Amino acid sequence: MKRFEIVPNFSEGRRQDVIDALCRCYQDQTDAMLLDYEFDADHNRCVLTAVGTAEALIEATLAACRIALREIDLNHHKGGHPRMGALDVLPFLPLEDATMEDAIAAARALGHRLWDELRIPVYFYEEASLGQKRLLPEIRKGNFEGLREAVKMDASRRPDVGGPDLHETFGATVIGARKPLVAFNVYLRSLDMDIAKAIAKAVRESSGGLRNVRAIAIDTTAQGSVQVSMNLVDVDQTPIYRAYEFVVAEAAHYGVSVSHAEVVGLVPLSGMLAVAERSLRLKGFHAEQVLEVRLAREGRA
Amino acid sequence: MKRFEIVPNFSEGRRQDVIDALCRCYQDQTDAMLLDYEFDADHNRCVLTAVGTAEALIEATLAACRIALREIDLNHHKGGHPRMGALDVLPFLPLEDATMEDAIAAARALGHRLWDELRIPVYFYEEASLGQKRLLPEIRKGNFEGLREAVKMDASRRPDVGGPDLHETFGATVIGARKPLVAFNVYLRSLDMDIAKAIAKAVRESSGGLRNVRAIAIDTTAQGSVQVSMNLVDVDQTPIYRAYEFVVAEAAHYGVSVSHAEVVGLVPLSGMLAVAERSLRLKGFHAEQVLEVRLAREGRA
Repeated sequence: MKRFEIVPNFSEGRRQDVIDALCRCYQDQTDAMLLDYEFDADHNRCVLTAVGTAEALIEATLAACRIALREIDLNHHKGGHPRMGALDVLPFLPLEDATMEDAIAAARALGHRLWDELRIPVYFYEEASLGQKRLLPEIRKGNFEGLREAVKMDASRRPDVGGPDLHETFGATVIGARKPLVAFNVYLRSLDMDIAKAIAKAVRESSGGLRNVRAIAIDTTAQGSVQVSMNLVDVDQTPIYRAYEFVVAEAAHYGVSVSHAEVVGLVPLSGMLAVAERSLRLKGFHAEQVLEVRLAREGRA
Repeated sequence: MKRFEIVPNFSEGRRQDVIDALCRCYQDQTDAMLLDYEFDADHNRCVLTAVGTAEALIEATLAACRIALREIDLNHHKGGHPRMGALDVLPFLPLEDATMEDAIAAARALGHRLWDELRIPVYFYEEASLGQKRLLPEIRKGNFEGLREAVKMDASRRPDVGGPDLHETFGATVIGARKPLVAFNVYLRSLDMDIAKAIAKAVRESSGGLRNVRAIAIDTTAQGSVQVSMNLVDVDQTPIYRAYEFVVAEAAHYGVSVSHAEVVGLVPLSGMLAVAERSLRLKGFHAEQVLEVRLAREGRA
């Protein structure tokens, strides 16, 4: 079956009734389900995780955007998190038999319907970018307020679908396709943020480290440690163990050891199995040897 | 759902038509499926792996035993593997929501029906043992030929259900319940079987090593190595990484390193995740964070 995970980020983290209404759009679809939702009042933002067919996820998102059009006005939105739209960003992640091409097609279909039916301007990002691959921060630069002005002067900043002006209250949204991302944090037995920052800089792709790794240092000294917080954006190509071993080795250069680590949120099975295979030096291991995988596969057949 | 894995071992490894007929008994049941079958002409034995509800697996096994009664005669059976019955041994392994108590109940139900309906005498082993826990080798000691005589003289060797004499052509069968077993082999960068034997002796429970570990040395010098071949009979209590790390440390005492390892056949997901958690020093990790586990759970709900 071709299913996708989507992670819609809405600019509402305070009004529980609005958040509930957004969630219900995904729960009401037969071929979709809401796996998780988180919200933060300081960020004034909620992040939903839903899984389903492209059709069901698109219908649910259109329904949710109708609510967002009615309830969320970016002109009066305050919050700590960068944002440019009432639905700020939504990536499609291919699951099971779905390919990245399928995810790109779903993202494009949703983008066009958002403009055609609701007059919401859309940007495409990550794998769904129209030309050169674009990332969220460069599209969202200046936030709602800044982007609203930028599109008037700079053609390169205009939406990919619709516009050129942003929607008066909704702003604009960013739709895309990407692989599942693993949020992976490593805690160091140290209270020295400079060491955490140096390790984060060493490991992340943008400053010359490992490909597919984004990293920052986080102050967790209240917990007796400092943290290297990573987003691993392609654990097939750059496995979790590679990032972990890199941080362990780098920390050793500062005479610091790793206390523990954590995976935040969801992780693909293949990512965890790759760690076990590395650790046991397994040869010839296949995911189909995992009893539960075999049962799920036979059950579908 | 309460489902079980069973691993029926039949004393037929040469006649493909008989093996196919045995397999079909499990394929024909709506609530059971055949996951795998292997056979070996030298051993003259086939090993099936099936999954399903207790009811479906019992019906399928009764059907298979009717075929075995007609086709297999232990008086004329020759093969390298120890055996005492046409269906030689069959363990029930609890899966998903099934408990060990459920597996024991299923084993007992099958055992009584084999005697009541087909006059096949039954022994219970492992967790399904009636009194003190009994293992297969002690029940099967002397094979079909020896056991046939032993039951006439020694009351302690008589079947738990039916008998006291074995079935004239079928022999008797051993039914039981146990946890899933992980077949885990570690290859050493050495051609010295004495080192492999010493490590196997050190790691196995029976000679003072790790609980829940059975181990022997296997000569794989043709592949440029020697092997410590282990059966891990409770990877919840004694994890795969514990056995692996034990063998690595013990090998180091002989100046030998580990080349690689292999998992043969099926392994429970929890066993593999435990290895990854150990390796990454993960804190607070739950199997529900694995995307595929979450999808399977939500799909059932």
